[in-house]
Amino acid sequence: MKLEKLQKQVLQANKDLPTFGLVKLTWGNVSAAWHEEDLMIIKPSGIDYEKLRLEDLVSIRISDGKVISGKLRPSSDSPTHLEIYRAFPDIGGITHTHSRYATIFSQAGLEIPCLGTTHADHFNGTVPLARTLTVEEVDEAYEYHTGKSIVETLRDRDPMAMPAVLLPHHGPFTWGKDATASLINAIALEEVALMAWQNILLEQDTAPLPHYILNKHYQRKHGPNSYYGQTKNSKL
Amino acid sequence: MKLEKLQKQVLQANKDLPTFGLVKLTWGNVSAAWHEEDLMIIKPSGIDYEKLRLEDLVSIRISDGKVISGKLRPSSDSPTHLEIYRAFPDIGGITHTHSRYATIFSQAGLEIPCLGTTHADHFNGTVPLARTLTVEEVDEAYEYHTGKSIVETLRDRDPMAMPAVLLPHHGPFTWGKDATASLINAIALEEVALMAWQNILLEQDTAPLPHYILNKHYQRKHGPNSYYGQTKNSKL
Amino acid sequence: MKLEKLQKQVLQANKDLPTFGLVKLTWGNVSAAWHEEDLMIIKPSGIDYEKLRLEDLVSIRISDGKVISGKLRPSSDSPTHLEIYRAFPDIGGITHTHSRYATIFSQAGLEIPCLGTTHADHFNGTVPLARTLTVEEVDEAYEYHTGKSIVETLRDRDPMAMPAVLLPHHGPFTWGKDATASLINAIALEEVALMAWQNILLEQDTAPLPHYILNKHYQRKHGPNSYYGQTKNSKL
Amino acid sequence: MKLEKLQKQVLQANKDLPTFGLVKLTWGNVSAAWHEEDLMIIKPSGIDYEKLRLEDLVSIRISDGKVISGKLRPSSDSPTHLEIYRAFPDIGGITHTHSRYATIFSQAGLEIPCLGTTHADHFNGTVPLARTLTVEEVDEAYEYHTGKSIVETLRDRDPMAMPAVLLPHHGPFTWGKDATASLINAIALEEVALMAWQNILLEQDTAPLPHYILNKHYQRKHGPNSYYGQTKNSKL
Repeated sequence: MKLEKLQKQVLQANKDLPTFGLVKLTWGNVSAAWHEEDLMIIKPSGIDYEKLRLEDLVSIRISDGKVISGKLRPSSDSPTHLEIYRAFPDIGGITHTHSRYATIFSQAGLEIPCLGTTHADHFNGTVPLARTLTVEEVDEAYEYHTGKSIVETLRDRDPMAMPAVLLPHHGPFTWGKDATASLINAIALEEVALMAWQNILLEQDTAPLPHYILNKHYQRKHGPNSYYGQTKNSKL
Repeated sequence: MKLEKLQKQVLQANKDLPTFGLVKLTWGNVSAAWHEEDLMIIKPSGIDYEKLRLEDLVSIRISDGKVISGKLRPSSDSPTHLEIYRAFPDIGGITHTHSRYATIFSQAGLEIPCLGTTHADHFNGTVPLARTLTVEEVDEAYEYHTGKSIVETLRDRDPMAMPAVLLPHHGPFTWGKDATASLINAIALEEVALMAWQNILLEQDTAPLPHYILNKHYQRKHGPNSYYGQTKNSKL
Repeated sequence: MKLEKLQKQVLQANKDLPTFGLVKLTWGNVSAAWHEEDLMIIKPSGIDYEKLRLEDLVSIRISDGKVISGKLRPSSDSPTHLEIYRAFPDIGGITHTHSRYATIFSQAGLEIPCLGTTHADHFNGTVPLARTLTVEEVDEAYEYHTGKSIVETLRDRDPMAMPAVLLPHHGPFTWGKDATASLINAIALEEVALMAWQNILLEQDTAPLPHYILNKHYQRKHGPNSYYGQTKNSKL
Repeated sequence: MKLEKLQKQVLQANKDLPTFGLVKLTWGNVSAAWHEEDLMIIKPSGIDYEKLRLEDLVSIRISDGKVISGKLRPSSDSPTHLEIYRAFPDIGGITHTHSRYATIFSQAGLEIPCLGTTHADHFNGTVPLARTLTVEEVDEAYEYHTGKSIVETLRDRDPMAMPAVLLPHHGPFTWGKDATASLINAIALEEVALMAWQNILLEQDTAPLPHYILNKHYQRKHGPNSYYGQTKNSKL
């Protein structure tokens, strides 16, 4: 039951990647975790989103990375997803894309500053950039160390209040309580990055959003007294 | 009869927000006012546009902000809409979005200069920027004071000749004689902002449209002797 | 027969304006001329493209601007179209839009330099900018003098080899042997303007296309020994 | 059998050009080579993609450029395609477009630097720019010398590891083991060019991707020990 629900969410979120303009070709993947069962469900590598079927998804044991079921090879980014799930049991879904504007900031080696309320509605401050991996890390286990570097970047933070990290030269990872929430954060991140890029080109020296407004917007959507949406702490 | 007509307009205008590329996710809302009945009709908070039904709309008394009908929580921006309707009885519809280019000017803290006739066809001069709210205003009643600041910005102007104000850090509000007109002004504002942004990047020092041309374009569409469209003072 | 054919072309070309992303709302119009019958067929003013029907088109006598048939008011830009047809009997169709990138150059008061072969395939050199009208011209007969200024800009040129002029602050006019050809030139102009804008932002000092390459590309498509397409001097 | 398969691939890849936003009007063409039979199959000149049928494709002998079958005139770029096939027997498909961002770099006379992993996933280093043809070359045989200049640009390289060259002032050529692969490389090139353009505008001095990361990404997709996709050396 729960497994099927998770699989359907992962399937739909992967199919939504091109629909929302977040990926070209096969450049992205969404996964979900079922922590109680030590299980991650993820897209197979290099398969077209429109051809993807429920039975193509791959199940992997979170603790040791062993493939449990699925005939296809899992996404080559699987070790990165696993490492994030291992560190953060609250995270139930992860999305990785090369969405254009978030990737620009990744390539330029810049964090995404909080320049407006759209950003504050989703991300509680500057979206951070992970460090560049060393030659040794790339040689030894590239995707695993990529995951480690994301966890390291979140060291002193609540990953649910900052559900995105940029990989330098590469692109964004986002997450949430489930696969759908991680996709929504990927959509929001791309739009926020786009507006930051356009903002900076128009006015290089734009000051960050004043903190009391950032706090107001983040809290009215995600705080204990939130009043956005139809339920407290709605999925957005 | 009139109520149902207003509700249908509000429903359609909300559904048109993503169609015209003005919103992502649930980042926008349209309302209408029936001033004679002291009534505002507005979108509920955080509901997807495609799932929105007529019976989901919320009715609020304009004078005191009391919810009259509707099972869902109204848009969290409702106090802003109400404050605009209270100040301007000619305004029959209001649209709020985070549309990309208008929001860039909001974030950059810049007004939108009138650089061409497309702008002059819809907005009689520079689109103004409201002031940033104080810490006290944000703490006390954020959305209410946002509405006050829009009214304050329009102090010496005819709101029907300048049917848009930018909120700093946030995004645009537009209005018109009804919900549909407010949506059309939101579409026009976004296109005008996009062209201003591109114009400024190409040629930083572009002079504003000469006043006699601004006046000609605005008057041929909206003046007492207008000759654009099929009726005098057509909805555009 | 011929009348109906022209009307169908005008109807289709107008409906194609939003399809090809050249207009928002009702910001554009296409006309055709039947010079032998002293007749221009044009879109009515302020009508949505999708609602436009054959019987809504307006016929105007070219020589004196008198409406011959049609119940609706013609496009307010009609005097501009008429003045172009009066000067150039080879022109059989005209398109006016506020397409984004061509309009940016108009607003910035810049001609569109020929920076690549895509430009040379359609326009035989720099796309010129008309002069700004005087206060007196705007007061007396704005749209008529706009047409005069386009004709004046083309003074020493073959309008079929330079089928576009930018109006300062306003946007482009394009033309061709018929309505369809004028639309194709509007599509090409917008793409060429977009690439010129992006090119200049990337590299301010890009040199114009060397003349021998410009000439080669223009001639292989439009010259007496053209070898592009399936017929000599094909519509493109 | 093989002929029909190649024709179907060429037809589909040509029809996909506008679907993937790579061409406007008729500005692009895809071909395939059957080297064993000394045969190239290519789009006819100036035909709309949506009207294109299998029987419209033109077959040309690679060795001497003689048209073998087809009632229509072949693409005017045919001599360029032929020259590439003559030099590189591994190339089975070629795509030529005026896709926006790759064309910007062509017009600006700039190579596309490798600024991120998306680039490294498809192109093993900087995408090179061919030299400008001389007056004599343009006069004598423009399209033939264009092909020569592409081959010259690839002089010291493996064309399968760098499946794209920019023509100065003009636009890109891409290739692959078949028509589909050449189209995929055209899609990837355009996205990579778009991100490079945006990246440079945001941060002029972005350093190229460190070589050990470039190598890692290229090799995990295309190297002898590749582990991306479902088969070694998958088509991507």
